[in-house]
Amino acid sequence: MSGNSFGKLFVVTGFGESHGPAIGGIVDGCPPGLALCAADLQRDLDRRKPGQSRHTTQRRESDQVEILSGVFGGLTTGAPIGLLIRNEDQRSKDYADLAARYRPGHADYTYDQKYGRRDYRGGGRSSARETAVRVAAGAIAKKYLWERCGVLVRGFLSQLGPIRPRGFDWEEVGRNPFFCPCAQTVPELEAYMDALRREGNSIGAAVTVVASGVPAGIGEPIFDRLDADIAHALMSINAVKGVEIGAGFACIEQKGTEHRDELTPAGFLSNNAGGILGGISSGQDIYARIALKPTSSLRLPGRTIGTDGQATQVITTGRHDPCVGIRATPIAEAMLAIVLLDHWLRQRAQNGDVTPPTPPIPAAAPR
Amino acid sequence: MSGNSFGKLFVVTGFGESHGPAIGGIVDGCPPGLALCAADLQRDLDRRKPGQSRHTTQRRESDQVEILSGVFGGLTTGAPIGLLIRNEDQRSKDYADLAARYRPGHADYTYDQKYGRRDYRGGGRSSARETAVRVAAGAIAKKYLWERCGVLVRGFLSQLGPIRPRGFDWEEVGRNPFFCPCAQTVPELEAYMDALRREGNSIGAAVTVVASGVPAGIGEPIFDRLDADIAHALMSINAVKGVEIGAGFACIEQKGTEHRDELTPAGFLSNNAGGILGGISSGQDIYARIALKPTSSLRLPGRTIGTDGQATQVITTGRHDPCVGIRATPIAEAMLAIVLLDHWLRQRAQNGDVTPPTPPIPAAAPR
Amino acid sequence: MSGNSFGKLFVVTGFGESHGPAIGGIVDGCPPGLALCAADLQRDLDRRKPGQSRHTTQRRESDQVEILSGVFGGLTTGAPIGLLIRNEDQRSKDYADLAARYRPGHADYTYDQKYGRRDYRGGGRSSARETAVRVAAGAIAKKYLWERCGVLVRGFLSQLGPIRPRGFDWEEVGRNPFFCPCAQTVPELEAYMDALRREGNSIGAAVTVVASGVPAGIGEPIFDRLDADIAHALMSINAVKGVEIGAGFACIEQKGTEHRDELTPAGFLSNNAGGILGGISSGQDIYARIALKPTSSLRLPGRTIGTDGQATQVITTGRHDPCVGIRATPIAEAMLAIVLLDHWLRQRAQNGDVTPPTPPIPAAAPR
Amino acid sequence: MSGNSFGKLFVVTGFGESHGPAIGGIVDGCPPGLALCAADLQRDLDRRKPGQSRHTTQRRESDQVEILSGVFGGLTTGAPIGLLIRNEDQRSKDYADLAARYRPGHADYTYDQKYGRRDYRGGGRSSARETAVRVAAGAIAKKYLWERCGVLVRGFLSQLGPIRPRGFDWEEVGRNPFFCPCAQTVPELEAYMDALRREGNSIGAAVTVVASGVPAGIGEPIFDRLDADIAHALMSINAVKGVEIGAGFACIEQKGTEHRDELTPAGFLSNNAGGILGGISSGQDIYARIALKPTSSLRLPGRTIGTDGQATQVITTGRHDPCVGIRATPIAEAMLAIVLLDHWLRQRAQNGDVTPPTPPIPAAAPR
Repeated sequence: MSGNSFGKLFVVTGFGESHGPAIGGIVDGCPPGLALCAADLQRDLDRRKPGQSRHTTQRRESDQVEILSGVFGGLTTGAPIGLLIRNEDQRSKDYADLAARYRPGHADYTYDQKYGRRDYRGGGRSSARETAVRVAAGAIAKKYLWERCGVLVRGFLSQLGPIRPRGFDWEEVGRNPFFCPCAQTVPELEAYMDALRREGNSIGAAVTVVASGVPAGIGEPIFDRLDADIAHALMSINAVKGVEIGAGFACIEQKGTEHRDELTPAGFLSNNAGGILGGISSGQDIYARIALKPTSSLRLPGRTIGTDGQATQVITTGRHDPCVGIRATPIAEAMLAIVLLDHWLRQRAQNGDVTPPTPPIPAAAPR
Repeated sequence: MSGNSFGKLFVVTGFGESHGPAIGGIVDGCPPGLALCAADLQRDLDRRKPGQSRHTTQRRESDQVEILSGVFGGLTTGAPIGLLIRNEDQRSKDYADLAARYRPGHADYTYDQKYGRRDYRGGGRSSARETAVRVAAGAIAKKYLWERCGVLVRGFLSQLGPIRPRGFDWEEVGRNPFFCPCAQTVPELEAYMDALRREGNSIGAAVTVVASGVPAGIGEPIFDRLDADIAHALMSINAVKGVEIGAGFACIEQKGTEHRDELTPAGFLSNNAGGILGGISSGQDIYARIALKPTSSLRLPGRTIGTDGQATQVITTGRHDPCVGIRATPIAEAMLAIVLLDHWLRQRAQNGDVTPPTPPIPAAAPR
Repeated sequence: MSGNSFGKLFVVTGFGESHGPAIGGIVDGCPPGLALCAADLQRDLDRRKPGQSRHTTQRRESDQVEILSGVFGGLTTGAPIGLLIRNEDQRSKDYADLAARYRPGHADYTYDQKYGRRDYRGGGRSSARETAVRVAAGAIAKKYLWERCGVLVRGFLSQLGPIRPRGFDWEEVGRNPFFCPCAQTVPELEAYMDALRREGNSIGAAVTVVASGVPAGIGEPIFDRLDADIAHALMSINAVKGVEIGAGFACIEQKGTEHRDELTPAGFLSNNAGGILGGISSGQDIYARIALKPTSSLRLPGRTIGTDGQATQVITTGRHDPCVGIRATPIAEAMLAIVLLDHWLRQRAQNGDVTPPTPPIPAAAPR
Repeated sequence: MSGNSFGKLFVVTGFGESHGPAIGGIVDGCPPGLALCAADLQRDLDRRKPGQSRHTTQRRESDQVEILSGVFGGLTTGAPIGLLIRNEDQRSKDYADLAARYRPGHADYTYDQKYGRRDYRGGGRSSARETAVRVAAGAIAKKYLWERCGVLVRGFLSQLGPIRPRGFDWEEVGRNPFFCPCAQTVPELEAYMDALRREGNSIGAAVTVVASGVPAGIGEPIFDRLDADIAHALMSINAVKGVEIGAGFACIEQKGTEHRDELTPAGFLSNNAGGILGGISSGQDIYARIALKPTSSLRLPGRTIGTDGQATQVITTGRHDPCVGIRATPIAEAMLAIVLLDHWLRQRAQNGDVTPPTPPIPAAAPR
């Protein structure tokens, strides 16, 4: 209960279940004067939406978002922005037999334990369907950040099972259904996914998100450090099991001479920090990487128990993503953007602008 | 500004700089009736405090905590608990020459950029000295969790540079200054650290924290998921660059059949989830692992710039931990305990108790 | 920006403008298991909705609410409850000429100053239309309080201009369009209002809300005292200029011997405290009274300035309530209920139930 | 539990009991660069502190405040400001016999009911002693508002029992122990209070606080309206039973033509709104008035019950204020200042400054 809001000044509150009449949310705190229409949100919603390729779930949702308030004459007014997306393709019958058993690796059991009941249709509130609302809200944040702050938030698939991109080109990310930054790697991914689908199994993945153009000075120590809020935001995405900033877990084996990013008048010499020092942005690119688990919705039978405590098994016949990481890139971008705009506003509250007091240090080249 | 509180119902607010007169905090939301005295906090403060072995900083702080309010007749009253720790061993002269230059890898530059000024003595607010307050507050949470909820929060050093413990025994953790769970590994760690100190360098580390006895049902989707709040809490600790839950980043290469923790009437068959499904505790042990970067305070000179933007270099001659991960175990335990108690209270608000509605499933053996 | 949520555990977030496509909100934190359907909300919405008598605005809105989430099988699930009310009778042309001038006594000028722009159609976000969402959300709180906590929240019109009810009967409140607790006073009110309408003027009013059955122990000193949160909630209602608890402003001239509510084993001997001592409920009825200003939307011309700073005048020809206090009773009840349930949950978080540790003292007879 | 913080961006958290070792707090969110030292806080603390005249409690507390953090080189750093005031004159024996009985009109009974126990020494947490921390924190807000925003926050005693000031002069307020704005009224007040003390009784009072120089545009509809947050802040002060803004309760009998503050290019023609329209400051002076109840600590015996539920009586022999309203002026000023700075920062977050977009309208002459 009452954990469905995120942010302090740019606040996103969501509602909705996988198979209810609609999902939606309220964005409270978008500054006035931003040009905004539904099409601005639709672009990212379309990037996330299911059924875009054979590698994701075949559920068909147009994911058309309606802006219900907070915009007048094409500009935001400072009032809360109501967002609504009607659910369309609800094959609830797919889920009828899940009422009485717990899918392993899913939230069925924990929802029952927590709330004493659950909407079992398609996972109900625990379904990743709610991430569409994050993407819509994040699109507002991304637009403000880009148009008003010069901040660009982007992401890409950095690993899928054993496969890592062999090259890197931001332009390539938008050209394939995997958000993979390397054209050469795409056929590998397709072959891997096709085999996986035949096998009836699923696979984990990693997504990296990057914010460029963030000036130094964003973040609120000691508990609302920028990295801490990013970790909160990204770990709140379904299926995420790990978050790292900059060098991340690799820093365990680094020595101080290697890890510390030295400074020269020409700029930082590296970016192991991922653009955040002491919980505050340094002016370098902000890097975060997340690990997404393989979905537990499989055609291959799994042992489980029923709500009666007796042993049984589950085969998932519904439509599912064999790699939930594939559609996660726009979601992770959205959450990073929401955090950044929230903190941008918090910093602006401090001294009226976000211009650093002294000439900023140039950033290192992206890793 | 205003980022120094953590928690919603069990709220910890901290203050204090490395070389100011004192550090301290307020714990607001501890339920009444808990037996509590300063000695209860001192035990964990002593585990964290510097100068306990040759492998940590030689700064001498007794870290004596004073409870200023919220306890009457030996029991908490429900009123906020004021905590005070006077600073003692402040060799501010060590830092005088840091006023005019930015130590690479530290928050000197970002604090100046954010606030337009900084308390440069020992890192000021960005010093890990503030973590003593976390440990004191966390000791209250740990005591309540253990005595009232049957939850045990523990941690250990799971990696130091290239070295991982070769065995595992909870009893061993308290017997060595590294919080290492394997007695055989301790001499290795000592040799490694001695060489490192001679070299003048530093090294990263990993710490794992575990909560046992957490019933199913704790956590508040979708944004205040238990794993999201744990990630926030742990990433807010100085030097942490990554957080993972359960299988964490290893899940990237896992298939669904491997990752999903199957259930039988006798219990879960594995714990890749780290005790959390859909953001809610499953009744299994909760596992989280953090990566801590090597400190950037080194005797080895590093390139940097001065506050005038000119090139210069820094040699840190103050007293520092060559591996900040060593003292991080009690801090990570504290943050995990604070999150768990906060969420325990939130769940109690929902339906008056935290007893699951149906017989819980036995947990898997710890990994 | 970002001031559109109320509550800590039972959180209401609203959106919507007077003449946009819809208003709505999200209720996050309703405990699971409450029987709920749209009809449960409709009853209070109908009490508030315009056009119920000749004494309120003739705008016609059916105010049909749709529940979009958070209810499954007729019971709340613990997930957020999405609420949607489409706007229907939007005569925006009524307001076209208000784009360029500021109505005195309204928020036109301050919205422009704050946000740099405003939705001038019918007051936009500053219209009392948003209170329908409060009423819908409050109906959920009232239902929970009554069915699960035995708390009854009611209100009545305690003054309209110079007229106070001459008698008191709870049953009478629902029988007249004024929410007046005295049948004999109703013809007086009707005559007064008819004359006022002919005059083209408006009048202030007072509304009293009462919660019965609240056990002792609800409220969170020192800042979230129950009376402080009630004051916040009630003062946030459009047109409210004053809030008092119990004896309220009359206490200025009371002596201590008169004001203090003495206790005997048979109960409190009076209720000057309005059921709250030290910010915590005492078990007596909770009384709060609000003053509502006369609306500034009048047929009688008023001096004002245009957005160009030049002198002009305003005549309001749109449909308005000549006494906004008349429809305020269900709104004030809703806000009181929201505060009480929020604090009920907070108290339940403390020790798992809200049963006082010792036999409670009987309440005094209602004043 | 967990209700001891106030504010969103300028956050004050307090701790401490009447007869514990100390009271104190943390001010989190003060912008960096403000010149600040303990003496800046001491001035207001001295205005509030007991024993300044024969008309207030004779408890002797020097109320010396210590700043423990957040200030470096005489300027705030943006880090949280720790505040500590040691208790000195604790005659706990005065209260020993109150352990077993409930003083009528005090929070003894409700604290026991809520927490299951209470620190009965001098009222413990429910004592007005905690207001010293509010005053210290408020002094920081007042200083920032005055030096950086041009906002002046002042207050005065507007009524004591039946006596109202017969004239008005801001200069006079600081010249008498009552904060009375009329020199001629002071002898009346003295005579009244002397008689009251002889009688052993107490009396209510009203205090008015005024903020001048607040630009238009401060306040966050719809729930965090400026008036709503002011009501919250002021009602959270001990003994306050009512809050009104501008015309307040008088608006009940006002007609719209009388109440609405008309505008001309030369300015507003009146200020019934108390400087707030639609929850947003209008640029006029902000007026709020509070009613304070007479203390229930009397030499005259009162009927009550013991913790055993049996009838008994109470005579208060400790040192008390016969009119708590006398010392309330600096407390009310502090709370108003805290709200205003918090909202100032929130508005600055919106668009980087608090300068209205068009020339502001001159304010009406103070009422």
